[in-house]
Amino acid sequence: MSSSNESSSHTRLIESLASTEAILNIFSDQSVLRAMLDFENTLARVESRLGIIPASAAGAIDKVTKDFPIGEINLSREAMRAGTPAIPFVKLLTERVRAADPAAAGFVHWGATSQDVTDTALVLLLGRARSVLATDQSRLDAALVAMSDKHATTVMLGRTLLQPAPPITFGLKAAGWLAAARRGWLRLGTAFDDAQVLQFGGASGTLASLGDRGGAVAQELARELDLARPDAPWHAHRDRLAALVAACGVETGSLGKMARDIALLMQSEIGAVSEPGGDGRGGSSTMPHKRNPIACSLALAAAHRVPGLVASFLSGMVQEHERGVGGIQAEWSTISGVIGSFGLALNAMAEVAEGLEVNSVRMLENIHATRGVIFSERIMMILGKSIGRDVAHKLLEKAVTRSDAEKRRLVDVLAEMPEVTAHISAKDIREMDMPAAYLGEAERFRKQLLESPKKKRE
Amino acid sequence: MSSSNESSSHTRLIESLASTEAILNIFSDQSVLRAMLDFENTLARVESRLGIIPASAAGAIDKVTKDFPIGEINLSREAMRAGTPAIPFVKLLTERVRAADPAAAGFVHWGATSQDVTDTALVLLLGRARSVLATDQSRLDAALVAMSDKHATTVMLGRTLLQPAPPITFGLKAAGWLAAARRGWLRLGTAFDDAQVLQFGGASGTLASLGDRGGAVAQELARELDLARPDAPWHAHRDRLAALVAACGVETGSLGKMARDIALLMQSEIGAVSEPGGDGRGGSSTMPHKRNPIACSLALAAAHRVPGLVASFLSGMVQEHERGVGGIQAEWSTISGVIGSFGLALNAMAEVAEGLEVNSVRMLENIHATRGVIFSERIMMILGKSIGRDVAHKLLEKAVTRSDAEKRRLVDVLAEMPEVTAHISAKDIREMDMPAAYLGEAERFRKQLLESPKKKRE
Amino acid sequence: MSSSNESSSHTRLIESLASTEAILNIFSDQSVLRAMLDFENTLARVESRLGIIPASAAGAIDKVTKDFPIGEINLSREAMRAGTPAIPFVKLLTERVRAADPAAAGFVHWGATSQDVTDTALVLLLGRARSVLATDQSRLDAALVAMSDKHATTVMLGRTLLQPAPPITFGLKAAGWLAAARRGWLRLGTAFDDAQVLQFGGASGTLASLGDRGGAVAQELARELDLARPDAPWHAHRDRLAALVAACGVETGSLGKMARDIALLMQSEIGAVSEPGGDGRGGSSTMPHKRNPIACSLALAAAHRVPGLVASFLSGMVQEHERGVGGIQAEWSTISGVIGSFGLALNAMAEVAEGLEVNSVRMLENIHATRGVIFSERIMMILGKSIGRDVAHKLLEKAVTRSDAEKRRLVDVLAEMPEVTAHISAKDIREMDMPAAYLGEAERFRKQLLESPKKKRE
Amino acid sequence: MSSSNESSSHTRLIESLASTEAILNIFSDQSVLRAMLDFENTLARVESRLGIIPASAAGAIDKVTKDFPIGEINLSREAMRAGTPAIPFVKLLTERVRAADPAAAGFVHWGATSQDVTDTALVLLLGRARSVLATDQSRLDAALVAMSDKHATTVMLGRTLLQPAPPITFGLKAAGWLAAARRGWLRLGTAFDDAQVLQFGGASGTLASLGDRGGAVAQELARELDLARPDAPWHAHRDRLAALVAACGVETGSLGKMARDIALLMQSEIGAVSEPGGDGRGGSSTMPHKRNPIACSLALAAAHRVPGLVASFLSGMVQEHERGVGGIQAEWSTISGVIGSFGLALNAMAEVAEGLEVNSVRMLENIHATRGVIFSERIMMILGKSIGRDVAHKLLEKAVTRSDAEKRRLVDVLAEMPEVTAHISAKDIREMDMPAAYLGEAERFRKQLLESPKKKRE
Repeated sequence: MSSSNESSSHTRLIESLASTEAILNIFSDQSVLRAMLDFENTLARVESRLGIIPASAAGAIDKVTKDFPIGEINLSREAMRAGTPAIPFVKLLTERVRAADPAAAGFVHWGATSQDVTDTALVLLLGRARSVLATDQSRLDAALVAMSDKHATTVMLGRTLLQPAPPITFGLKAAGWLAAARRGWLRLGTAFDDAQVLQFGGASGTLASLGDRGGAVAQELARELDLARPDAPWHAHRDRLAALVAACGVETGSLGKMARDIALLMQSEIGAVSEPGGDGRGGSSTMPHKRNPIACSLALAAAHRVPGLVASFLSGMVQEHERGVGGIQAEWSTISGVIGSFGLALNAMAEVAEGLEVNSVRMLENIHATRGVIFSERIMMILGKSIGRDVAHKLLEKAVTRSDAEKRRLVDVLAEMPEVTAHISAKDIREMDMPAAYLGEAERFRKQLLESPKKKRE
Repeated sequence: MSSSNESSSHTRLIESLASTEAILNIFSDQSVLRAMLDFENTLARVESRLGIIPASAAGAIDKVTKDFPIGEINLSREAMRAGTPAIPFVKLLTERVRAADPAAAGFVHWGATSQDVTDTALVLLLGRARSVLATDQSRLDAALVAMSDKHATTVMLGRTLLQPAPPITFGLKAAGWLAAARRGWLRLGTAFDDAQVLQFGGASGTLASLGDRGGAVAQELARELDLARPDAPWHAHRDRLAALVAACGVETGSLGKMARDIALLMQSEIGAVSEPGGDGRGGSSTMPHKRNPIACSLALAAAHRVPGLVASFLSGMVQEHERGVGGIQAEWSTISGVIGSFGLALNAMAEVAEGLEVNSVRMLENIHATRGVIFSERIMMILGKSIGRDVAHKLLEKAVTRSDAEKRRLVDVLAEMPEVTAHISAKDIREMDMPAAYLGEAERFRKQLLESPKKKRE
Repeated sequence: MSSSNESSSHTRLIESLASTEAILNIFSDQSVLRAMLDFENTLARVESRLGIIPASAAGAIDKVTKDFPIGEINLSREAMRAGTPAIPFVKLLTERVRAADPAAAGFVHWGATSQDVTDTALVLLLGRARSVLATDQSRLDAALVAMSDKHATTVMLGRTLLQPAPPITFGLKAAGWLAAARRGWLRLGTAFDDAQVLQFGGASGTLASLGDRGGAVAQELARELDLARPDAPWHAHRDRLAALVAACGVETGSLGKMARDIALLMQSEIGAVSEPGGDGRGGSSTMPHKRNPIACSLALAAAHRVPGLVASFLSGMVQEHERGVGGIQAEWSTISGVIGSFGLALNAMAEVAEGLEVNSVRMLENIHATRGVIFSERIMMILGKSIGRDVAHKLLEKAVTRSDAEKRRLVDVLAEMPEVTAHISAKDIREMDMPAAYLGEAERFRKQLLESPKKKRE
Repeated sequence: MSSSNESSSHTRLIESLASTEAILNIFSDQSVLRAMLDFENTLARVESRLGIIPASAAGAIDKVTKDFPIGEINLSREAMRAGTPAIPFVKLLTERVRAADPAAAGFVHWGATSQDVTDTALVLLLGRARSVLATDQSRLDAALVAMSDKHATTVMLGRTLLQPAPPITFGLKAAGWLAAARRGWLRLGTAFDDAQVLQFGGASGTLASLGDRGGAVAQELARELDLARPDAPWHAHRDRLAALVAACGVETGSLGKMARDIALLMQSEIGAVSEPGGDGRGGSSTMPHKRNPIACSLALAAAHRVPGLVASFLSGMVQEHERGVGGIQAEWSTISGVIGSFGLALNAMAEVAEGLEVNSVRMLENIHATRGVIFSERIMMILGKSIGRDVAHKLLEKAVTRSDAEKRRLVDVLAEMPEVTAHISAKDIREMDMPAAYLGEAERFRKQLLESPKKKRE
């Protein structure tokens, strides 16, 4: 039923809007502040439990962090001047704790350094990003599987260098997008797993100020924040984050490729597919039939933005000693830019995949419009077996020129050439431009792509 | 008087904070919205004056745009989905005008296209950015001129590959930073001049929907917005913006070089200079004498971030036909990231230049600590004239080794070597490690750098 | 005559091949070696003339540099290990001079440092690059002017977001490419002018080892090498090179835009233009009528490569003190990559512009194929004046839907609607989809673009 | 024995030089040509075995490819014009086969497309690169393990923002470099595994021209070339290569961090370590004791270059349909630049790690030179437990100021303050700046880093 379709399409759109919202919120000021508060609160609780700071101090810190007026605080100017939000944040938190319980103020952030709170907050936010992304990735995956299966036998032009080439199926094309996205997501999964690690090292990364209790605090802190404990604090080694940023870059590239293919297929002269309109997207007030590739433009915008951001991140890895000057301060906005752009791209392409309109008639017409010259390689290879490739090549050249001049199908021209029909019957010739008969391994490749793993083999 | 110094330092700090604030505000949601409203309001006024739309419509639009509740509107989600803020903005503005005067609603945005409003708004915001940046550039320039003059004869180690080299003056070093910043600012001036152009082309860039009045509207619109009129609308040719972004990148690199030099000179073992503490910067609660290179870290962070952003912008220039898919949508956040990072870097280095503490005693001590090996090239060239360079080289090698082993000045060792004193008197030798006598063209170069142009020759 | 055309096309191709060759040779090992030899030879000659080194030494150096077996020397491994070609080069040159005249060996490279020879050699090679590029830029400019004039009235679809939009002329499109390329070349001209400066500073950039003769040597050296003298040596300030690299990046982006437009117009379903085949380009052995956008692919490849190289260069500007660790060593291959990619792009697009085949019939057919919906904005604005925009919008919507369903021209549908013909005569309506009547300022913009300056106003 | 050390150092140097050579050769013209010949020869052999082409043709192709005068052929100009080396290569190979056996010429490259030969050749060369890199990675790993163990208890300053911080051990620092390099190599291992896949798809990626034999040819071809078979040809999906390029970028960043740390520690005022001189590296002819961080400069140069190249590659992923215009043509030089820069960086840092001279006395002196202020946090936290943190903070502030003014150890100043000795004995105070007693978890972290995995868990 179209109405049930419409209602499921409506549900999907609502989900999609929720993802957009969620992606935009991950690195909002409020969200960052909340994550830093979570770190400080958990740290105090753990240290109190281990007898390192008084229970009353932890209690005061707990109360203050929970009642924090998150919406009212704007640390951005101070953060910009200090090169990190941690310094103004810890100062502000300490003041508020002091107001509530002067004795507790001295135990805020006990044994930690600025980077411990910002890095761990970042890791917590990345965890949140991961689950938002996972939803859109699943939507994209499911929609592309369905699309590929539905169009397993829908033939269309292959296109190389934007010129017509022998046919493929639209199912194969969709399967190619799917498998690239899956590989990208697998890489991202590994990168996310590796990056979900606590940062807790104190001033120089040795936890020296906690005496012999540093290890115990780190262990409990990691457990409560649901993070792994790394071999050692990673304050000056940013490779796990870099690998995550790079993995976002690679999948963004694959999404960009899908988006460009679709935007090109949407050109009016080609008219093979159409992006769904959706709320706030693509439609035109004057031309109701018109669909702009708006969602594709978001994925392509990400594919333009993210590579440079990846470069920024990589160039910032070269950090001096136990805390760098410049590299570390450049990270935050880069990583939030990458997650934001990539997230919007993934969300957009999931929406596109779910609602793409496919015009298989136009696809076939586009093949016919080439008059069969895309099969000339095929015919030449077959003819060549009988009369030699060089002779075959010359015959084909002649036939293609005539087909072009007379606006006739190439096979019709060939079927009238005695030099050709001496070797292959006119009837056989005339069947040589049937697209479905010249698809080679397309269906096998398609199936194999659909079977490509969605999860790492454990 | 130190108190007057302190008070002028306080005044400078206030100015500096104002710049930080101003930079962060240029591309705020409110600021963007205001610029788009200015465009629409001016467009309506001009079209009404030229008799293209009714005066009453222009009046209604004027009123609505002026009373716009800027602080309450959040277009970001809609903008993200539409790939441009213009579409939700024009829709919202039209609704509000319709509410005030239904007949006027149809004349909102008359003859314009989405890109006309976003591009022109961008150009207006860049004009605002320019004046904020100019203030900090002037501060930086003045402070570096003073610093260079004050330290015209302050000798310090040259350093190549981070190893000691023959001496320079700190005045020369500061003049080098100055001249690079000036060249950068001259380039930026040209780029800003070129980019201050109206965008107004309508759907395809021909202004066709305004019939034969397009030219007149464009002329008036440019005049009222204080922008130049380009040869033609530039919707699909982004080179002026790209050149501006690239010019920001080049000056950011020069500021980063200055910041790295200073951060390195601040290392405790070197102790040659110290960044001023300032409000929210650099100090340490535990170690009152300590100064972290926080302002330098902001400039270096920019020097890590901006190159990637420049690459993003350049890669997005390849825009399809009369409006691209992806390239244009990627621009906005890239350009605001560049202006923001560069602006904070310039602001930070102006503050550093104004308040840098220079320790010329430590600079001299660092030269002495090399025991004069940095003069071995000099001595070898002089000795070589008498005894041949090869022989001189061997003598020097021997002397350097002994100087190193015995922890004595190289010239003292040489002054005891008869092979040397046969050609140069011991007294002359002993004066060969006087830094001030081995500065070559340092002062001439310094003066020439200070005389380098601040403004383009008209 | 076609034969004279063919022969001029042949001549142009030969010129184009020569440019390709010249670009590839600029940074060849031999070319670099030759430039370094020129520096050393000129330095010795100047120093001898000024009485700083013996005339006999200069004579020996002159002879050895001129007889240097350039083709037999491969310094790349040593250069890679030393981080600069200068160190192995000076060593090798000194050995060869010693073999010819032992007394002269000590005077090789007198007073200079490694960076003096590599930087000045680089600047000399950039001068050579400039003249190669200038040739192709002139070819591109002339060809685009001719193309634009020829097609001043050739109408074609405007395309926004790859969807049909109101018409433009092909002459306007070509003029847009032209003006962007001209602006790019003007920027490059400034950047080349600024970068054509001698680097000569000795160990720390003070020329101290030349005593009071440093200035005189620098002056003569610059004069003989036909370079400007900068305010001071620029060993650690790389902004002039950065600005040049960035300017290449900006023009590469503009060429990429032109290339993408052409590659898209070459799609078989659109068939508006065709890249010339040329020697080794674009043709297909099987499909004689086929033209791949090979030259465009080179410009687009450059547009993908160069932005990242620009980022590499900018990130390397942050060089420590008087000679950096890493930044400087990264420059050479980046700059040669930029010049090479950009040069090939410019060469390719000049060739394309000179030989582009334009199919104005297909351009018109593509407009007709839209059935006139691209004029719906126009009609709505005209109708709206009589009946209000809201009512007009609804009428148009209805008409567009019918035009789409019945595969008829939109104006024919409208001409049958009494609600419409009550206000505009059917005859007038039927003329509303004439592309030539809806071009607005296209021709004025085109002319203005063609008049845009080719040279800086002095 | 020092002589045995020297001889092993000599052996290591020879190995290192061999790596440099090998890295530079991977993407030489000859090496690329050989890989393409291997592809064509294997293809012909496999197709002959499967009865697709005549055995005589395969024999002729085998002979011609084996006798190919690799050193004499220069395809670069043709490759530059065609956008790919494949087209001129296949043409040349066909001509040579035709000369040897006219009947065989038609079977050269049978069923393959240009990209099949270039992509598979690239993959083969990457396999070669992998084994060269693996050797240097092993050297680096072994040398860092030894260095870390040897310096497990060598204390040195921690440094944050280039300012002194509480002590660490050099063993911990080296272990940090090691673990980052190992993680980088593990990621690279996965990326290399994933990228070692055959590309073989024919014109549109369906192998249609081989009828039902495409799958069989692909299987045999992969087997003979020792490559995996992918789910489908990957001509338009470049994510596997992108992931490899990005993984090189991440490890390059980690090597750059190590190089910067070392270059900074080599500054003469710090004098903590010294890069080995080696053949063609680092030494100075005038100053025999001088060591320039030349090898570090190569790693840092790579860390400046590679991020931009990664961005270039990622931006090129957005390839149109079954073969892109521009993206694919940009890949080759980018990937060879990445492998070359990264390979030289890895080679350089292996050499550095094997020969680094460590001056643990200077490391300790640098700690002492801070007069113990780096322990003020420690003392404040201990004192704070007795007297409250606020009071403790004020006492410390006073003491630090006095220590600074009187050039005395902070603990000596504190030991004379009755407010302090009322709570902690003067003797205990005086021991509070012993670095070895304030290392926290340094040794545990070090050991854990050394135990980090070198190989993926299978």
